[in-house]
Amino acid sequence: MAQGKLRILLTGATGRVGTAFFAASTERYWFRLADRRIGTLPGFIGHEAVALDVADLAACRAACEGIDVVVHLAADPSPEADFYDSLLDNNIKGTYNIFRAATDAGCRRIIFASSVHVVLGYPDQPPIRPGSPVLPMNTYGVSKCFGEAVAAQFAHAEGLSSIAIRIGAYDPPWTEEEATSRNLSVYLSSRDMNQLLTRCIETPNIQFAVVHGISNNKIKRLDLSETQALLGYQPQDDGFAVFGVDGPG
Amino acid sequence: MAQGKLRILLTGATGRVGTAFFAASTERYWFRLADRRIGTLPGFIGHEAVALDVADLAACRAACEGIDVVVHLAADPSPEADFYDSLLDNNIKGTYNIFRAATDAGCRRIIFASSVHVVLGYPDQPPIRPGSPVLPMNTYGVSKCFGEAVAAQFAHAEGLSSIAIRIGAYDPPWTEEEATSRNLSVYLSSRDMNQLLTRCIETPNIQFAVVHGISNNKIKRLDLSETQALLGYQPQDDGFAVFGVDGPG
Repeated sequence: MAQGKLRILLTGATGRVGTAFFAASTERYWFRLADRRIGTLPGFIGHEAVALDVADLAACRAACEGIDVVVHLAADPSPEADFYDSLLDNNIKGTYNIFRAATDAGCRRIIFASSVHVVLGYPDQPPIRPGSPVLPMNTYGVSKCFGEAVAAQFAHAEGLSSIAIRIGAYDPPWTEEEATSRNLSVYLSSRDMNQLLTRCIETPNIQFAVVHGISNNKIKRLDLSETQALLGYQPQDDGFAVFGVDGPG
Repeated sequence: MAQGKLRILLTGATGRVGTAFFAASTERYWFRLADRRIGTLPGFIGHEAVALDVADLAACRAACEGIDVVVHLAADPSPEADFYDSLLDNNIKGTYNIFRAATDAGCRRIIFASSVHVVLGYPDQPPIRPGSPVLPMNTYGVSKCFGEAVAAQFAHAEGLSSIAIRIGAYDPPWTEEEATSRNLSVYLSSRDMNQLLTRCIETPNIQFAVVHGISNNKIKRLDLSETQALLGYQPQDDGFAVFGVDGPG
């Protein structure tokens, strides 16, 4: 295990967010990469990989041993996911297990991948604040509301530090038709997400926060002011520019 | 089945809240009383009783047939309840199942028994508003956050009407030592709860609401203004008077 570097457990390591974050941060942190099926990833030498089904609490406990910060990305990411077929195991039990295991193992912080889906029911404008009541429109969004509540409870009652990131549309392969104002207003580039994750891992003195994960889009459906003030997050990209869309006005 | 009367499915019918509400409303509604073990209750004649484990989706579907409004009280009410031992089945699956079943059966509205535990982490004052972010301090509270998110999602995405009541301390058997200002500030008498449930059942034109279930306590930890404005709820009791405590000031 590398000395001096923060030891990160990255669940969902082979997903799109995990792969890009690991690639960008291979030198910065020591990683335990975890996913249901895991092989070797580029830059893997010097890190660790474990097969992990987050629905298995005992396996989560083993994966959390010796870890400073957990970046918990493992989840079914589909807005159409079914409660009993998938969400109950992957998102509900999986999130509870990771928080339970990390807390008991003495980890300092968990970064929880929440989603814009927890507030999907709001109109496009005004921008949604992190303290607005949840308003999910599908069971996937409900599962992320559960995760935010777990993150709040462990932070306030069990002394863990936790940050929930409401992730917008991550590096989306949108067609011209899909690149609507509403969609672009939650665009998140991979390099902005990598920066945001680094800020979430390294910013000291946070007991609990809900932060917003979008780029510096010309129009923002999620308000970034509190996130930027808390973390010093400085997004570099604008979805409207990336997709060549002017936006209204 | 009685004609002209609203048809109510009352889950958790043999619990303290359910028993008192049924006794007070025997003539006002037609009831299908449901609980894991159910016998005959006083005033039962003319109503229906079914054994129901809310963790069983098929059983929930049968219980919801022909029902206008579901009053969903069934849950593990213990703040110390364990996730895997109890909450996952009784509160998580149970609530999802009732919302799924009631929606598919064409019920008009669900009244969901939420709890002050979803916002337990706030200081005593100022009074908590229904739109404040959740702040649970135990897994029981997390399970009720999940239920509120389910209630919001079904109301906004599936057209059901739903109202979540954050129930305070219901008719509590407190000793003198337990009757602290903080506790009394969430006191809820059974007759105030009965009135509140009736208002939740009968007030028209509500798609979704979170309301607060406490009495007219001299000091209120949960703000009642929005609840009273929405429902015309007029609580009669004051926990400080009931327990003979002056309260500060």
